[in-house]
Amino acid sequence: MVFILYPKVTQDKIDKFVRGWEEKGFSTILSTGTEHTAVCLIGNTAQVDLDHVVQTTDIVAFGKRITEQYKAVNRTVQEQGTSIRVGDVTIGEGFFTVISGPCSVESEEQVLEIANGVKMNGAKVFRGGAFKPRTSPYAFQGKQKEGLEMLSFAKKETGLPVVSEIMNQTQLDLFDDIDIIQIGARNMQNFDLLKAVGALKKPVLLKRGLANTIEELLMSAEYIFSAGNSQIILCERGIRTFETMTRNTLDLSAVVLLKQKSHLPVIADPSHAAGIRSLVSPLSKAIMAVGSDGIMIETHNNPAKALCDGAQSLDLEQFGKLMDELKERASLEKKVI
Amino acid sequence: MVFILYPKVTQDKIDKFVRGWEEKGFSTILSTGTEHTAVCLIGNTAQVDLDHVVQTTDIVAFGKRITEQYKAVNRTVQEQGTSIRVGDVTIGEGFFTVISGPCSVESEEQVLEIANGVKMNGAKVFRGGAFKPRTSPYAFQGKQKEGLEMLSFAKKETGLPVVSEIMNQTQLDLFDDIDIIQIGARNMQNFDLLKAVGALKKPVLLKRGLANTIEELLMSAEYIFSAGNSQIILCERGIRTFETMTRNTLDLSAVVLLKQKSHLPVIADPSHAAGIRSLVSPLSKAIMAVGSDGIMIETHNNPAKALCDGAQSLDLEQFGKLMDELKERASLEKKVI
Amino acid sequence: MVFILYPKVTQDKIDKFVRGWEEKGFSTILSTGTEHTAVCLIGNTAQVDLDHVVQTTDIVAFGKRITEQYKAVNRTVQEQGTSIRVGDVTIGEGFFTVISGPCSVESEEQVLEIANGVKMNGAKVFRGGAFKPRTSPYAFQGKQKEGLEMLSFAKKETGLPVVSEIMNQTQLDLFDDIDIIQIGARNMQNFDLLKAVGALKKPVLLKRGLANTIEELLMSAEYIFSAGNSQIILCERGIRTFETMTRNTLDLSAVVLLKQKSHLPVIADPSHAAGIRSLVSPLSKAIMAVGSDGIMIETHNNPAKALCDGAQSLDLEQFGKLMDELKERASLEKKVI
Amino acid sequence: MVFILYPKVTQDKIDKFVRGWEEKGFSTILSTGTEHTAVCLIGNTAQVDLDHVVQTTDIVAFGKRITEQYKAVNRTVQEQGTSIRVGDVTIGEGFFTVISGPCSVESEEQVLEIANGVKMNGAKVFRGGAFKPRTSPYAFQGKQKEGLEMLSFAKKETGLPVVSEIMNQTQLDLFDDIDIIQIGARNMQNFDLLKAVGALKKPVLLKRGLANTIEELLMSAEYIFSAGNSQIILCERGIRTFETMTRNTLDLSAVVLLKQKSHLPVIADPSHAAGIRSLVSPLSKAIMAVGSDGIMIETHNNPAKALCDGAQSLDLEQFGKLMDELKERASLEKKVI
Repeated sequence: MVFILYPKVTQDKIDKFVRGWEEKGFSTILSTGTEHTAVCLIGNTAQVDLDHVVQTTDIVAFGKRITEQYKAVNRTVQEQGTSIRVGDVTIGEGFFTVISGPCSVESEEQVLEIANGVKMNGAKVFRGGAFKPRTSPYAFQGKQKEGLEMLSFAKKETGLPVVSEIMNQTQLDLFDDIDIIQIGARNMQNFDLLKAVGALKKPVLLKRGLANTIEELLMSAEYIFSAGNSQIILCERGIRTFETMTRNTLDLSAVVLLKQKSHLPVIADPSHAAGIRSLVSPLSKAIMAVGSDGIMIETHNNPAKALCDGAQSLDLEQFGKLMDELKERASLEKKVI
Repeated sequence: MVFILYPKVTQDKIDKFVRGWEEKGFSTILSTGTEHTAVCLIGNTAQVDLDHVVQTTDIVAFGKRITEQYKAVNRTVQEQGTSIRVGDVTIGEGFFTVISGPCSVESEEQVLEIANGVKMNGAKVFRGGAFKPRTSPYAFQGKQKEGLEMLSFAKKETGLPVVSEIMNQTQLDLFDDIDIIQIGARNMQNFDLLKAVGALKKPVLLKRGLANTIEELLMSAEYIFSAGNSQIILCERGIRTFETMTRNTLDLSAVVLLKQKSHLPVIADPSHAAGIRSLVSPLSKAIMAVGSDGIMIETHNNPAKALCDGAQSLDLEQFGKLMDELKERASLEKKVI
Repeated sequence: MVFILYPKVTQDKIDKFVRGWEEKGFSTILSTGTEHTAVCLIGNTAQVDLDHVVQTTDIVAFGKRITEQYKAVNRTVQEQGTSIRVGDVTIGEGFFTVISGPCSVESEEQVLEIANGVKMNGAKVFRGGAFKPRTSPYAFQGKQKEGLEMLSFAKKETGLPVVSEIMNQTQLDLFDDIDIIQIGARNMQNFDLLKAVGALKKPVLLKRGLANTIEELLMSAEYIFSAGNSQIILCERGIRTFETMTRNTLDLSAVVLLKQKSHLPVIADPSHAAGIRSLVSPLSKAIMAVGSDGIMIETHNNPAKALCDGAQSLDLEQFGKLMDELKERASLEKKVI
Repeated sequence: MVFILYPKVTQDKIDKFVRGWEEKGFSTILSTGTEHTAVCLIGNTAQVDLDHVVQTTDIVAFGKRITEQYKAVNRTVQEQGTSIRVGDVTIGEGFFTVISGPCSVESEEQVLEIANGVKMNGAKVFRGGAFKPRTSPYAFQGKQKEGLEMLSFAKKETGLPVVSEIMNQTQLDLFDDIDIIQIGARNMQNFDLLKAVGALKKPVLLKRGLANTIEELLMSAEYIFSAGNSQIILCERGIRTFETMTRNTLDLSAVVLLKQKSHLPVIADPSHAAGIRSLVSPLSKAIMAVGSDGIMIETHNNPAKALCDGAQSLDLEQFGKLMDELKERASLEKKVI
């Protein structure tokens, strides 16, 4: 950890600052420039709250953590990628796992038709929204508890593991039969929810928030991991920028960096990122090409009638065509699809 | 509501689209351009899910709500500004209510000293964080339940009403003695929490999310209002942009627009927006000049020792000086401070 | 073009507004809602300045162009993609053209070694910066005129056409021997420069600005096209967002949308977008997968000694390896590389 | 300057890196952490190209300039604020200079009426656009040379100094009679133009770019200053963010920080920032409250007929009313208006 002090700080104050650290067991090295002084801290700084120090110490102009603060999810502590098993399915390096299903579950007939359709085309996990976060209180809020039961039904009928989004920790009991619990973008920094799913023994799919950095996503994963649950799948799903032609801006560099920085599996969601059906297939191929461990795609048996997000959903024929393209490319990327 | 259709849509499809709306009781007007057709919908469109229609209807290229979707919080339904009473304090038009206190409550001595200090200088509400949302699981998470008790103590001793941030709806019981419940920026779209505080009979201070639009803030207020609670204070606190010299970018245009669009009181928080102490006073004066109904400022008896966010806190002397400046300006802005 | 009027506008004002348009030869259709009135304009609105109308007409709350304002570069006026020939090289649909070379040209030896290196590996165009836009006046500004001569030398020796960035229109004469003139991101809205290159008869590579929308990029292309030059290559190179781990955020959705909206060839630049060498190869493969017509990559014979942007440059070995990967994938994307 | 090296760098490479700096005359201090090593550079690093070093040196993970790179415009080299004289007008500390006039000059009658109107109400400088940067090639591009002559006419008639935007350096001769040359937001990093106006002996009004940081604005000012022209006025005019309800997001923290970091005068432009007339007056008062040295406001004798940007222009009556409010507040801010 390096601190840079303001110019013209008195020697007294510097001494006091340095002594404070040494009393806590750190070594320090001072470097005095023409205008500024730098203090380098040596020792285990993982528990040091950098922001706190910078903000509470009047003489410190700038601080920089040399070692990343995410420890448990850091690739440096585990060189090999984490593999997550859900039933017969593996999510992790060497695989390209396709998760698909409707934005919102609507009926048993619907989920069954879509689940069968995506399974037949090679999807390994079925997704469906039961609790839907919606900007407007007047918009459809999802089938909720009943929706989760439809997912259970689809799971029983097709054998596909299922993933669905949780909205808050009081719903945990309802998710007993759900195989992967999704934390949506708006909840990426709902820290109490992160702690709650950290206490579970089942995989968590953690989506990047609309305005969250790659580092913040890793710190949120660290919340779950440090609470005891190492089965975390990171998901890039587009960030909010000034561009208005797409709903969000898919950040594929993030997929590469997340894979470099962390041992956790990383997937991406082109449907929510783009919000436009015609972008889903090209972006999906790009997601595979960039080294992602999988993808989450919205499909629907009848997009024009979907209760939400129809515009970004593929129909089953389009999904089949995309899967053919992904299968053609998988071996080049050394991925089992 | 206006829909613009893609070029070369068949007349059949247009007829079917129009008929669908008429069957739901809307009138429609068609306008056929050289390339595109526009369909204008007439009737009460408040319950129409615009995104849904655009996304699920293949022939629709673009849709625009003419009338805003936030109804209950809209200035058009109530020309006069809402005033919120908390004990003897009024928050609303004609007043400039100063809310102040530490980022994080630390001890009874601390809260008492700060509460007395800010009260003496003219603050009308005491703020203090008990549950702290922190990016890192290793950072100080607040004094939690014990912190709320310290706030109760400060309230009893000083008579100041208190505001504190809630993290999730399971904590509601703990907030019984808290006068104003704060929804933090990261929870602005925690819709279940919004519904839960919507069921209360006490004021809610709703902060704008880091990446949320003015319209989304109003829609979140609409969640609370439509759930039965009309005592909502909106709070601008800076948005996330590419600029790194400040923690966030304070958006003062938002304060003006929120006042124009909604009848709810609007305040701003310069401490979190800037993250730098030397910006707090100038920004505070700007917040008053722009027509805000109040301000929320972090103060501390000893910023250099604060357990969090010390760098952006004023000490009591700086706070006093700022209050003097605000008092000098209040009458010019026709505000009681 | 649709205009939505403010609520409670008098009939008189509406009539006057409508009459104004009719006098200019447009037909109008009025649609009166419960609160607002919409006016649809029918006729050739290409020359109507929408912003101007909205901003200068007090009764207009909102206006929306139904037909896109970019006409000449619009895919609707030319279904087939534009192909650009530079010597023996084609840039356009069916091809994946690799442009490569150093960020900055440094010496004849350097350009020759790199040009030979990239040519041997399959690059079709050589790039090299002679005039360098740098944030600091104290940073290296490029070899300038001498640098252009080095490029001519490389061109003569290798037969590769060359591309280099122009900084302002007074430099045009110096670029006589340069085959493709690059307009950098910072100059995307240097409208006088756009007009100047619009008067040329040689290809222009137009990079997207850091904070410019897809639509603005197309409007800048329209400047060049409408000035008489149809040989325009669009280039996505990352936009500025809140994320700091990469230099910019590569927006691959933009590549897809540009291809859909316009008939012009579209390429992408992963080197500047990411600013990190280890991202260049995965992003390059993604750029091909998403349907781009080519790529521009920085290479260097000795990145550690490059006078600028060394960190994002591949060395020739890395470039060769990437080219092998791209060649393996080209036929799947139906591209000649 | 501090460099942080990657973990596991060999001692050999570190030694070589350190020796390189020492050969250039710098002292270095090494600080070895548990995982990383930090190298602190001591000496005059103003001419060191930090990005270059980080990017070209494989062992360097991160570099941080301790001393700011903008030297000439830095407040540390000149504690007292720079005052700029234009005729009888002073722009600088102690003053709040109001610059006003139409977005675009249209006719002698128009400029005369507006110039007289704003002068009568207390504006000290007259502004008017002759060359207009427009997104669309089909939009009105300004009265150009003829427009500059209208400004000269207004100047002669009213005695007000005039400011107008230049688009490129070939136009410099045309600006002989213009007192302050404006560099628009899109040209903030048109470095050749910056150098060209740096060679002049007249004031330059430098606007912040839509996607440029505060530091980049200061570096652009440094271009002008280091080329020989110290008469620079910085202007905040809103940045591009995800918010769409305003045209741009006015960043008032930037005004405060620019005043702290630099000795140059700083003004702000609420008209372009907001793009909405009803925001101009509240934002103007905020701009004064925050410590700005002045303001640039668009006014028009007949906004509804303005050839561009009418929606954000005040009419002369509104301008007069705003000036009254600013005059009431000026003494509180210790400003002569």
